[in-house]
Amino acid sequence: MLFFTQCFGAVLDLIHLRFQHYKAKRVFSAAGQLVCVVNPTHSLKYAPTLYPAAQTSTEQSILPPCHHHEAVHDPQLVPCMCPLFSCPWEGHLEVVVSHLRQTHHINILQGAEIVFLATDMHVPAPTDWIIMHSCLGHQFLLVLRKQEKYEGHPQFFAMMMLIGTPTQADNFTYRLELNRNQRRLKWEATPRSVLECVDSVISDGDCLVLNTSLAQLFSDNGSLAIGIAITTSKVHNSEAEM
Amino acid sequence: MLFFTQCFGAVLDLIHLRFQHYKAKRVFSAAGQLVCVVNPTHSLKYAPTLYPAAQTSTEQSILPPCHHHEAVHDPQLVPCMCPLFSCPWEGHLEVVVSHLRQTHHINILQGAEIVFLATDMHVPAPTDWIIMHSCLGHQFLLVLRKQEKYEGHPQFFAMMMLIGTPTQADNFTYRLELNRNQRRLKWEATPRSVLECVDSVISDGDCLVLNTSLAQLFSDNGSLAIGIAITTSKVHNSEAEM
Repeated sequence: MLFFTQCFGAVLDLIHLRFQHYKAKRVFSAAGQLVCVVNPTHSLKYAPTLYPAAQTSTEQSILPPCHHHEAVHDPQLVPCMCPLFSCPWEGHLEVVVSHLRQTHHINILQGAEIVFLATDMHVPAPTDWIIMHSCLGHQFLLVLRKQEKYEGHPQFFAMMMLIGTPTQADNFTYRLELNRNQRRLKWEATPRSVLECVDSVISDGDCLVLNTSLAQLFSDNGSLAIGIAITTSKVHNSEAEM
Repeated sequence: MLFFTQCFGAVLDLIHLRFQHYKAKRVFSAAGQLVCVVNPTHSLKYAPTLYPAAQTSTEQSILPPCHHHEAVHDPQLVPCMCPLFSCPWEGHLEVVVSHLRQTHHINILQGAEIVFLATDMHVPAPTDWIIMHSCLGHQFLLVLRKQEKYEGHPQFFAMMMLIGTPTQADNFTYRLELNRNQRRLKWEATPRSVLECVDSVISDGDCLVLNTSLAQLFSDNGSLAIGIAITTSKVHNSEAEM
């Protein structure tokens, strides 16, 4: 009897994931785009058909300051690489990917353009939604963080980070796009390196920032679909040094 | 002597405006784009060469609630049309433009694509930067508001409003674009009607929202250049009803 109950639960889960996948595909109609459903859960569950990689950090409500790794002086050690609040891990750049895969069960998506569907946007801050993305011969990390910089005023911060050095990161441009109800919001920027800290990217304002109203405007039933594209950098003619 | 001092001051002002105009033109390189310098000042000064239309609302630090006009029942009366905090005026849609021109000395710019250069972004909230824009046979109002929805946390809200009905507004799409330091932020939406209230647009999140860090990232020497384009609406293929 327990076996049948579990089977039924699994089937329901698959139907639910399929439904979310279908919804995200409707938002971004470009054929062949991979839709990735990302849940903010504690469990490290993993559904191969949809590549979910779900992480959360609600067990730690106080932000660890970026400088809690100040004792690290080896410049090759990655101090704040793991964007999850709860993970104190630090290590060399070369083993960041394996750490994220093995410890956090975060999968790697392939393809230059994907859709990141973050579910359960209503969960309290701080929470992270993260995924790895393999593209143009490099690995990138997409981090969506819900955080209260000001008490009672949660904001969402979305950014792409290269698992590489800042110099390597300068060779790329990424675009995040929200699109719903005849509203469209696009953020284009050079990715930051994971050698930098998620917190410092947020405090620099160097990411896509959404307040709660904007997030609700673009969400559907608590899920936010973010279209992601990565290209190699070109010189932007229209932005002269000022 | 006083005459010469004043002349010298006027020349310095012109040089300053010319410099700001030049800077804005370098940001948005498209030839022929009109650059409009908008100051958040109390004075209603007016420099014809650069079409400044400057308004501020710092004299009133408490937000008048939207429903302070609830006594108005004539649907043709525009209750919250004047986005300036300090102006209690209400009137019919047909005379909104003349009210803004005559009472607030706000000029009308022509052209489908313009650059709005808001100066002195550091002034304390609440402050408005506004300009009228004549395009495609209609008049639009660009409102940039600095406001503290949460105390000690000023945000910038930029929106385009049609001086017309909501049904007329549905025929247009506007785009606001920030572009600096290899970062680009674009907001595309249907304009709201001035028959609606600026406050309700802000609380709906239906506008471009910048926190202080983002605004600083895109500002140059305290000035923020916003590229504006208005087009007639097309059906967005990529945004299915969800």
